[in-house]
Amino acid sequence: MMRDMLNLSINRDNKIPLYKQIRDQIINLVTKGILKKGHLLPSTRDLAQSLEVNRTTVYKAYRELWSLGYTESRPGSYSIVRDRKEINRSTNSVSVSIDWNRLIPLNDVPFKSAPEPVKEMFDFRTFSPASIDEAVDKFRKCLNDVLKERGSQLLQYGDSYGYKPLREYISQMMNENKITTDLDRILITDGAQRALDLICKLFGKPGWTVITADPTYSEALSLFRFYGAKILSVPITPDGMDIGVLKEILQDYPVSFVYTMPNYQNPTGISSTQQNREQLLESCEDAGVPIIEDGFSEDMRGTILPIKSMDKNGIVLYIGTFSKVLFPGIRTGWINGDALIIKKLTALQYMSSVSGNQLMQAALDRFCHLGYYDLHLKRIHNLFKKRMEKTMNVLSSFFPVKSGEYTCPAGGFYIWFRFNPSFSSEEQLIKKLKEKGILITGGSIFSTGDSGVNLRMSIAHVPDNRLEEGLIIFCSTLKELLKG
Amino acid sequence: MMRDMLNLSINRDNKIPLYKQIRDQIINLVTKGILKKGHLLPSTRDLAQSLEVNRTTVYKAYRELWSLGYTESRPGSYSIVRDRKEINRSTNSVSVSIDWNRLIPLNDVPFKSAPEPVKEMFDFRTFSPASIDEAVDKFRKCLNDVLKERGSQLLQYGDSYGYKPLREYISQMMNENKITTDLDRILITDGAQRALDLICKLFGKPGWTVITADPTYSEALSLFRFYGAKILSVPITPDGMDIGVLKEILQDYPVSFVYTMPNYQNPTGISSTQQNREQLLESCEDAGVPIIEDGFSEDMRGTILPIKSMDKNGIVLYIGTFSKVLFPGIRTGWINGDALIIKKLTALQYMSSVSGNQLMQAALDRFCHLGYYDLHLKRIHNLFKKRMEKTMNVLSSFFPVKSGEYTCPAGGFYIWFRFNPSFSSEEQLIKKLKEKGILITGGSIFSTGDSGVNLRMSIAHVPDNRLEEGLIIFCSTLKELLKG
Repeated sequence: MMRDMLNLSINRDNKIPLYKQIRDQIINLVTKGILKKGHLLPSTRDLAQSLEVNRTTVYKAYRELWSLGYTESRPGSYSIVRDRKEINRSTNSVSVSIDWNRLIPLNDVPFKSAPEPVKEMFDFRTFSPASIDEAVDKFRKCLNDVLKERGSQLLQYGDSYGYKPLREYISQMMNENKITTDLDRILITDGAQRALDLICKLFGKPGWTVITADPTYSEALSLFRFYGAKILSVPITPDGMDIGVLKEILQDYPVSFVYTMPNYQNPTGISSTQQNREQLLESCEDAGVPIIEDGFSEDMRGTILPIKSMDKNGIVLYIGTFSKVLFPGIRTGWINGDALIIKKLTALQYMSSVSGNQLMQAALDRFCHLGYYDLHLKRIHNLFKKRMEKTMNVLSSFFPVKSGEYTCPAGGFYIWFRFNPSFSSEEQLIKKLKEKGILITGGSIFSTGDSGVNLRMSIAHVPDNRLEEGLIIFCSTLKELLKG
Repeated sequence: MMRDMLNLSINRDNKIPLYKQIRDQIINLVTKGILKKGHLLPSTRDLAQSLEVNRTTVYKAYRELWSLGYTESRPGSYSIVRDRKEINRSTNSVSVSIDWNRLIPLNDVPFKSAPEPVKEMFDFRTFSPASIDEAVDKFRKCLNDVLKERGSQLLQYGDSYGYKPLREYISQMMNENKITTDLDRILITDGAQRALDLICKLFGKPGWTVITADPTYSEALSLFRFYGAKILSVPITPDGMDIGVLKEILQDYPVSFVYTMPNYQNPTGISSTQQNREQLLESCEDAGVPIIEDGFSEDMRGTILPIKSMDKNGIVLYIGTFSKVLFPGIRTGWINGDALIIKKLTALQYMSSVSGNQLMQAALDRFCHLGYYDLHLKRIHNLFKKRMEKTMNVLSSFFPVKSGEYTCPAGGFYIWFRFNPSFSSEEQLIKKLKEKGILITGGSIFSTGDSGVNLRMSIAHVPDNRLEEGLIIFCSTLKELLKG
């Protein structure tokens, strides 16, 4: 092997550091093929002398050549030019060198996404309130203020339990619902869905079993299935979950928890009666089974208090959220339960996300403490109350009773339609309604088995001045289907 | 059973609705024990006549009495007073009616939280840069602007893949690292930890196996353990993961993926060489095993390109993040990989959170597109470069070599200390250092087995003007321990 001085030149007037000049000239020589694989570079001492530079300068250049893969051994020993893998600039296609099916055991998690509201149509799918501009503007000011006051701090990781002043506010809110609590029993999560994910992480184990209402919230079912739970379902009656069936199941199976939404249930809009809530609590207490109470629309202010308010023995884990009634995009919910359970859930949250979004929590806290949340609730409450009344009026006049029946929720924003099996299929219904400009959610995703032909209607999104028109088109489309 | 008119009275001047006046008077009679269990209330018609109110008013009052649990049957039939469970106002204690241990299979997820920086001490634990005020102010303005312009839209649920313009920006960033990509191959997550959680959700199955470096990022280990993975570890050398050991393991075990952090690895600060990255890629390609490349400090701009840049066959899933170099509290990261795999991960993200934080993503996008992120990177890069140089200088003068050795990272912010087994225990080291005002992270959480006595130092948080002092105290404490 030949060792030469490579004919390098150094320009001391150039702003480029000397070591980089050396490095780049050598790279150039390798790239052009002038220095080939196996070529022995001069020693650092020799090259330094020849170029009249400090030896550490050459050392630094060699170190980078090594780390960039141009030479074989570490600087200090001999540096020999080596083969270097070409950098890939081609387009990735689906990998052929990996048998993904062997590795990924997913029973095809179906691809879903939040529906994007379609303005030109009557969108009865989403629950996002259509007009929230005033609250958005107030929230913007709150965000701006907290960032001005304590931005550097709020953009760090936060308290693992969530922003403390917001936990204090939540605590007060829960007190208004007759739930006694304190800060150690509240964990703030980035939305209610994450709360449910954490609860599955806590309870999930091979062969576990959960009880839900049928129908129930579709994304709870997705999570339970994903975490491998056996799902046993209890029919929902106009009073709430069927307690007789519930008791039988509790006797027969080792159950990890009962998942329930007592207020304006998703998808039926049904609120459980006081008596039903008491019986549910009693049955679970007798069986020693916890209750997951999903209070997703608690703030729609039903007349009945949450099950958690009667929970003397701490068997209820309560999930709350700001995302429904305020803004979906705020992604802030919470879990309330026994301090020990909350501590475990907090550890699981740290494991899955390190920290929640402290900035959003602080802005929301400001928003709440200035009374904007209460104000907003009142507006939204009135808005939805009027909408539900209007909807019930229109349906009672125009809905073709021969096609099926529907729930008459006392509040909230969901209505559930159960059609006669002979009437139509879910697919056909959705297709026909879409042709007439009506977007609505099919019922099958809310059930664990075959539960007939159902639709879920949300009255949250269609603007006030178009609601009646949309409902009438909905009913007349059903009438047309009846005829033909 | 007696039916009387209950001596109710109605005040028409009162603002309280009539039905509520009726309802509340009856509740009052029940609560006082005047109306006892079994008492038959007057029919709605009789009471309406006697009070001279509309019959629907009485119906409404009875309906609420029923739903609140004061009467037995639904309104319309006879209303009979019933026993009502007292609402719990007592403090919850840990539940005794549930055998939590039977239900919760967690092998005690240890309770951890992000360390809160302690100002008075030298805090070598956290990586949060101490001074980011300028960037915070710019970010505040970006947030304020996007909320002004499109607030109502940004506070709804967003695109399941993440905010599109930000995905475009990330795509450009990746191109600068010689990674060809497009929008379908980028999923934005609420931080890199969530990205890792999703990847575990995708790959996790009974009896699965992953390979990591030893030591490696502690919270990756937590997740792998939680999802039931068998963890096989490969020693890390100054060049990166030990390829010889890696190849042996790949031959002997069915592995789901290799998890690696080639740049300024957490906790050692070691950057893999170009050659090491090539060999790692080649070994995994040969074995048909995907690589999870955690580029958590890619933006610290090492001189070597990511493994993903050489990934012709799409076997690498790359995790990136804005949280480290910008603000931890921004909770925004991403995954880049094959379109099909990204689609599955997106479905899993929808299942666990419905939507990411679109507002943060939009503000960050504005911040990036105005060039603030690049500017910030340059500042942070210079800052950390100087700190690492200063640290290496101080350590080379003051570190007592008899106690052990340390890594000499070319950049980033982590340094790894490996002490002689006879020198001290981790516990004692941390205790002694704390007494002298030094907070530092013990090494055991980064290892899967017994790996001796180690410490991880982060030089990101201690302010420039206190760094040298802190390091000298660190070294002199070690010297004292040597003597005693």
